[in-house]
Amino acid sequence: MLVNIGVIGGSSCSPEICDLAYRVGYLVAKRGAVLVSGGMGGVMLHACRGAKDAGGITLGILPHGKEDANEYVDIAIPTHYGLARNHLVVRASDALIAIDGYIGTLSEISFALNEGKTVVSLHSWDLDEERITKGRYVQARDAEEAVELAMAATGKNK
Amino acid sequence: MLVNIGVIGGSSCSPEICDLAYRVGYLVAKRGAVLVSGGMGGVMLHACRGAKDAGGITLGILPHGKEDANEYVDIAIPTHYGLARNHLVVRASDALIAIDGYIGTLSEISFALNEGKTVVSLHSWDLDEERITKGRYVQARDAEEAVELAMAATGKNK
Amino acid sequence: MLVNIGVIGGSSCSPEICDLAYRVGYLVAKRGAVLVSGGMGGVMLHACRGAKDAGGITLGILPHGKEDANEYVDIAIPTHYGLARNHLVVRASDALIAIDGYIGTLSEISFALNEGKTVVSLHSWDLDEERITKGRYVQARDAEEAVELAMAATGKNK
Amino acid sequence: MLVNIGVIGGSSCSPEICDLAYRVGYLVAKRGAVLVSGGMGGVMLHACRGAKDAGGITLGILPHGKEDANEYVDIAIPTHYGLARNHLVVRASDALIAIDGYIGTLSEISFALNEGKTVVSLHSWDLDEERITKGRYVQARDAEEAVELAMAATGKNK
Repeated sequence: MLVNIGVIGGSSCSPEICDLAYRVGYLVAKRGAVLVSGGMGGVMLHACRGAKDAGGITLGILPHGKEDANEYVDIAIPTHYGLARNHLVVRASDALIAIDGYIGTLSEISFALNEGKTVVSLHSWDLDEERITKGRYVQARDAEEAVELAMAATGKNK
Repeated sequence: MLVNIGVIGGSSCSPEICDLAYRVGYLVAKRGAVLVSGGMGGVMLHACRGAKDAGGITLGILPHGKEDANEYVDIAIPTHYGLARNHLVVRASDALIAIDGYIGTLSEISFALNEGKTVVSLHSWDLDEERITKGRYVQARDAEEAVELAMAATGKNK
Repeated sequence: MLVNIGVIGGSSCSPEICDLAYRVGYLVAKRGAVLVSGGMGGVMLHACRGAKDAGGITLGILPHGKEDANEYVDIAIPTHYGLARNHLVVRASDALIAIDGYIGTLSEISFALNEGKTVVSLHSWDLDEERITKGRYVQARDAEEAVELAMAATGKNK
Repeated sequence: MLVNIGVIGGSSCSPEICDLAYRVGYLVAKRGAVLVSGGMGGVMLHACRGAKDAGGITLGILPHGKEDANEYVDIAIPTHYGLARNHLVVRASDALIAIDGYIGTLSEISFALNEGKTVVSLHSWDLDEERITKGRYVQARDAEEAVELAMAATGKNK
């Protein structure tokens, strides 16, 4: 069985954040893990693009139909749950990397922590640590460190 | 059709927070709305208790079986989704009131905002307003104001 | 906690089937149980109408928004899952009564049996009994018998 | 994007049915499609084994944790929805092949038809055609024909 790493973030991104997402996707695939995402644009698209350039496999868990998938998604799951598909992105992932992002990304970070998973943050939400009683929310400085931390955590989640 | 107000918060609470949850539940029921919650202990239990004392109806959306419901739940939905039931608590609610709470509560607040709903906070999470691009997250000073704000918002959500 | 009885069937119905659904809804409410349904038209609507005439409470678990609910739904849950909301109708019900119905009704009958529940059939699908290895699928002759069988089964399901 | 073919059937199978499932999985992978299943034993396991022998990719959508996956699953999604994961197997599939099976398989067949999809039956449930108002339920004589019919249908579903 392959390791699944989720990459979450906004459906639009600045050039710097897009580059960061690409680099994360590339490194996830180089490590032999499946790139799991919400399958849409922005951070999701650039992470998928990076994973494909590295020869990896991408899984896109979509809010509605397959026609919404970005062009770098190999395996699409058209959930038709709307944004509730976010929690399935979390469950499909052994560990997650959050890149920037808005309120949708926060819904994934918080659900992942609530499920006891590790989420690595790259310029994403600051959270009040005293209220985080489950999971692990760790900061990374760059794509390399983020992927390293996420891969290391997969042995401890399930 | 009745109005549904969701009350979210931790499954354990300090005496002050338990009293606040009771008061919110009481006022929601007095306004004729259904008290929607996760159906378990802590804030959920005390809000349900308040709603029952005011002659209201309580709907408990449970993570597993009906045996987990607190004694003040009238109508239980045993989803067997685990903590993913949180997103159903949100969808069942026309507006929500968050009282205190930990990471599970944050998963509900953020999902509700992402769905475009209004969440009224009573001593709950502080969030970076610049990243909240959807929904409305408003602070209330006490139970009366919280219920007033939530009821006022139901006309604008669906 | 109240007992929840699910009534499932087609979103359109002949006059005879509509009357039968009304009678089932009426009797469910007279027994003090909540009438759970998919909240739309046809069998769902007439069962809800019967329950309201008997002074009961109706819970409608909707595929999309609240605007789809029939006028006899008290508490609406707009799941936005599409037809996958059928499995939530099943989980919300302690026992179910299937009246007539097409392929959507079959998806609810079969999922309910697979969850180990009792489904009472009133002019609904004939199923190959040898392949039914879980749950109980029983035939009723009329509304009175159907409600009696469903209520009797609630003690054995959860 | 790859085509996804779902294979559904019982979690235990006779030697003949296990061989048939293996052959179907093998042919699905030879056609370049992803083999989607519930990821457990019986028909699911043998279909996955066939797909791996043909060099394909297998996606297993599990009722609970990853530890339940059979050894031929490449990408596991531990939904923790229980048997409600069946509807996600359906949504993830562009078309489905039902092999033998009991009530769980019927819940997948009927939900797939209700979603308008094509289900190819290999020794699976007989259904009253007059009540099938959505989707297409077609009989195949052998694995070759089943895969041919399912692949042909993917252009018409989404």
